[in-house]
Amino acid sequence: MLIRKATPEDWPAIWPFFRDIVTAGETFTYPLELGEEDAKGWWLVPEPSRSVVAVDDVGTVLGTAKMNRNHMGNGSHVASASYMVDPRHSGRGVGRALCEYTVDWARTAGYRAMQFNAVVETNTRAVRLYRSIGFEIIGTLPEGFNHPTEGYVGLHIMHKAL
Amino acid sequence: MLIRKATPEDWPAIWPFFRDIVTAGETFTYPLELGEEDAKGWWLVPEPSRSVVAVDDVGTVLGTAKMNRNHMGNGSHVASASYMVDPRHSGRGVGRALCEYTVDWARTAGYRAMQFNAVVETNTRAVRLYRSIGFEIIGTLPEGFNHPTEGYVGLHIMHKAL
Repeated sequence: MLIRKATPEDWPAIWPFFRDIVTAGETFTYPLELGEEDAKGWWLVPEPSRSVVAVDDVGTVLGTAKMNRNHMGNGSHVASASYMVDPRHSGRGVGRALCEYTVDWARTAGYRAMQFNAVVETNTRAVRLYRSIGFEIIGTLPEGFNHPTEGYVGLHIMHKAL
Repeated sequence: MLIRKATPEDWPAIWPFFRDIVTAGETFTYPLELGEEDAKGWWLVPEPSRSVVAVDDVGTVLGTAKMNRNHMGNGSHVASASYMVDPRHSGRGVGRALCEYTVDWARTAGYRAMQFNAVVETNTRAVRLYRSIGFEIIGTLPEGFNHPTEGYVGLHIMHKAL
């Protein structure tokens, strides 16, 4: 598996699983009807932010991440990141590799911490992964997310010092 | 004291204390060098968000607030708000009146909760005010804010169910 900078040419490979994940409405606080052009602009972010794809040996896109500043001004030393893994390639460590990549990127870029603002508490797989990489839940927004089948569930705020 | 919708004509009265508060860098995660036009665009937000001013009997602007959605998609039921009080008019209950206004606005607009994403922990006056109105600290981002004189201090995430 290789993680490299995402280009506009990667978008057609990203969009089908990006759309499915967002439309499912179970893990992201994105508009469920997010259009393709808006989604592309949200995800393929310009420097100094960074968007990457994880690809296999033959170049198949397995997943993607974006990483960026979280707060501005005197909070500018805190980064954030988001991840999407193509469900057809789950269970292969793609999410872990992407998460570790973003942590390294943030540390190298001089950030002092990474904060996730809204991790859906029923997304236990993601929570477990982030914890295993050193993130801690610093708080939970009660009923912050209206899950399509679980109803109102919490949104975790997670943090890792770098 | 009257709280009414802010108009572009109010901006010249807002900008001097807005600029001083942002430039001081003690309470907001805004760029310290935020220019006036950018600031105006950030603060005087279009519907369905709302920006207001608190004015006294002769129309003097005492403070201002903006209120808006915090999360998108399946988190759209969570609002947020920000407040600035002209320091020359502090201690008169302006901040409290503005905060109570935003809570009422959010409730009326159908939001289920209000969340503040980044309350500087050394801003004890604001923290005390928010608590007195029913907000609770649900977590604190450790060293999330680089205070100009206190160094790295926490950023509280605060929440109130509506």
